[in-house]
Amino acid sequence: MSDAELDPGLEGTVVAETRLSRVDGERGELVVGGFPVGELAGNATYEETAYLLLHDRLPTATELAAFRADLADRRAIGESVRGVLRTAAREERDAMDALRMGAAAADLGTEGSDSLEAAKRVVAAFPTVVGTYWRYRQGEEPVEPDPSLGHAANYLWMLTGEEPDDAAVRGLETYLNTVVDHGLNASTFTARVVVSTESDVVSAATAAVGTLKGPLHGGAPGPVLDMLQAVHESGDPEGYVRATLDAGERLMGFGHRVYRVRDPRAAVLSDAAERFYEANDDAAFFETVQSFEDVAVELLAEYKPDRRLGTNVEFYTAALLHGVGIPRDLFTATFGVSRAAGWMAHCLEQLGENRLIRPRARYVGATGRTWTPVEDR
Amino acid sequence: MSDAELDPGLEGTVVAETRLSRVDGERGELVVGGFPVGELAGNATYEETAYLLLHDRLPTATELAAFRADLADRRAIGESVRGVLRTAAREERDAMDALRMGAAAADLGTEGSDSLEAAKRVVAAFPTVVGTYWRYRQGEEPVEPDPSLGHAANYLWMLTGEEPDDAAVRGLETYLNTVVDHGLNASTFTARVVVSTESDVVSAATAAVGTLKGPLHGGAPGPVLDMLQAVHESGDPEGYVRATLDAGERLMGFGHRVYRVRDPRAAVLSDAAERFYEANDDAAFFETVQSFEDVAVELLAEYKPDRRLGTNVEFYTAALLHGVGIPRDLFTATFGVSRAAGWMAHCLEQLGENRLIRPRARYVGATGRTWTPVEDR
Repeated sequence: MSDAELDPGLEGTVVAETRLSRVDGERGELVVGGFPVGELAGNATYEETAYLLLHDRLPTATELAAFRADLADRRAIGESVRGVLRTAAREERDAMDALRMGAAAADLGTEGSDSLEAAKRVVAAFPTVVGTYWRYRQGEEPVEPDPSLGHAANYLWMLTGEEPDDAAVRGLETYLNTVVDHGLNASTFTARVVVSTESDVVSAATAAVGTLKGPLHGGAPGPVLDMLQAVHESGDPEGYVRATLDAGERLMGFGHRVYRVRDPRAAVLSDAAERFYEANDDAAFFETVQSFEDVAVELLAEYKPDRRLGTNVEFYTAALLHGVGIPRDLFTATFGVSRAAGWMAHCLEQLGENRLIRPRARYVGATGRTWTPVEDR
Repeated sequence: MSDAELDPGLEGTVVAETRLSRVDGERGELVVGGFPVGELAGNATYEETAYLLLHDRLPTATELAAFRADLADRRAIGESVRGVLRTAAREERDAMDALRMGAAAADLGTEGSDSLEAAKRVVAAFPTVVGTYWRYRQGEEPVEPDPSLGHAANYLWMLTGEEPDDAAVRGLETYLNTVVDHGLNASTFTARVVVSTESDVVSAATAAVGTLKGPLHGGAPGPVLDMLQAVHESGDPEGYVRATLDAGERLMGFGHRVYRVRDPRAAVLSDAAERFYEANDDAAFFETVQSFEDVAVELLAEYKPDRRLGTNVEFYTAALLHGVGIPRDLFTATFGVSRAAGWMAHCLEQLGENRLIRPRARYVGATGRTWTPVEDR
């Protein structure tokens, strides 16, 4: 069949050209839509970032107003989708299961097969799916989307039923911009494989959510928060880190498949978290977070000098999302809310110059078996 | 980043070792679970084939009875899933959209995270999802699954509400066995990427359905049937083929990304269709199908001597599925019903020796952009 070498993680394989983001793991640099992530994330609204990915430039004021209205118009989900989310909440299913179910059905009620239109619908509907599920989880009725609010503010509104303050919106918006795209990570790659068959972007988004659900990809920002809160209480980060490493356990929030240095997104999220906690007169928790990072980096270098385990995106994700009021159980789903625009932009890019993605396998099974009826087995 | 060559279709890349199936495109051979497809497909029940893929051997009589009961126990779907399917049917959505929605929510009501248990649930529930959707499409109430019937017979039962005859069950069963697995096709690969993040097999099945939906993968057996029926009516296959090729159009049912000769599945499905149509005293339609193939192969060699366009699996899929009573609009969804066992077996194989699948992209976009506020654009 093939004499090619087995590449089970595809680390050595370049499968696409993209203008959406560039990850430089050695230097710890991330470019999103042509901008260093630190230049973009704290300045842009999520709508500007989504537009940038879809159109390769920032929108003018007129274009931005139209795009924002476009998204706001597409936030609604149908009653049958609500029914599934109600069941998911009643059965206490994971938020990522709920997002997969809602995404799978999210085109109910829309017409046409224009991929850009469908892409906008996916981006717009994700916060509604998560918000609706969450309200049911709390035993409350869903909050209707508010078209006067931007994407990030409306998401907080749908979770809480309260108009969020500017600091929380800015913090969330910076998070959503920071993790919106990140090269050919597993979920983005999945989305591209799906549309490479000329399937649709809703199917791709659903597949991507199911991929992001995996802890090797979506990570575990929830447990990172538990860890930070425990250390904040004990006041002893060094004790915590030593106990973890002495037990031979992995320290959550550090190390990444691609980055060999501090994840550049950690810097952006750290700055955003610092600003948020200062605005909210809660500097003490943030000080714990920072001193935990310092201690952990120092001790990881001592315990695992060959591993180059830098702070990863999960670490400050936990601190920032917790600060702005995202419930711990929704951290990964909120990652999905952000990544929706990246997935959709990758789908459109793939469809623009498409080739079916179909790799090979090496067969290592039996051959030449012959049939035996069940009574003779 | 990487100097590796771009491989946008991954044709040159071996991403996994598998014992599930081997596709030899040059020689036109397909091995499924160690059996040449022709040795397995016409002999086995679908349950035997599914067991073979999951356990790498055929079940004993006792094991088969237990496995069959296991699947029969897992056929039910919940009321909220029905609600989504009802809406999908009312809005006349594609059957593959409905299957994606149902698959996404198919673990509602089950507990635990044992992958083999969840895999059985996926295989068992797929016919229920398709059958429920189809009954709603017809304006009828769903038919409850019948645990006394095998997998294939129960699928026909749920579509029609009538107990199917043996010839139809055998024909469908042969189809389900023939297309159950086929190397690292795009949907199977998608399923493996999803679980490579340590996500779950329901997410993988949902992603695979969304991938199979694409016409470059799931194909167009429906239009093949239209073509065969038109030719059966006109009695002029040569005129049809010449008109198609003279117009520069692709002839449906011929040519495959991997096979350079006649798809080995075409032979199995052709035999099965011949047996079915003879048992049903409808040899005339099948004669049209066979003579169409002969004419098409001859004319393709004349028109496109360099292309090696053999008969593909869609061609006899259309003839056989139509014969056994699968509605044209459910051909691709029935492909999914079959492939479910292959997808699940690949997921378990991937999880058994897992490595996160995360390829690279080459960045071709801008760099070093600087922020301009919207009012200055």
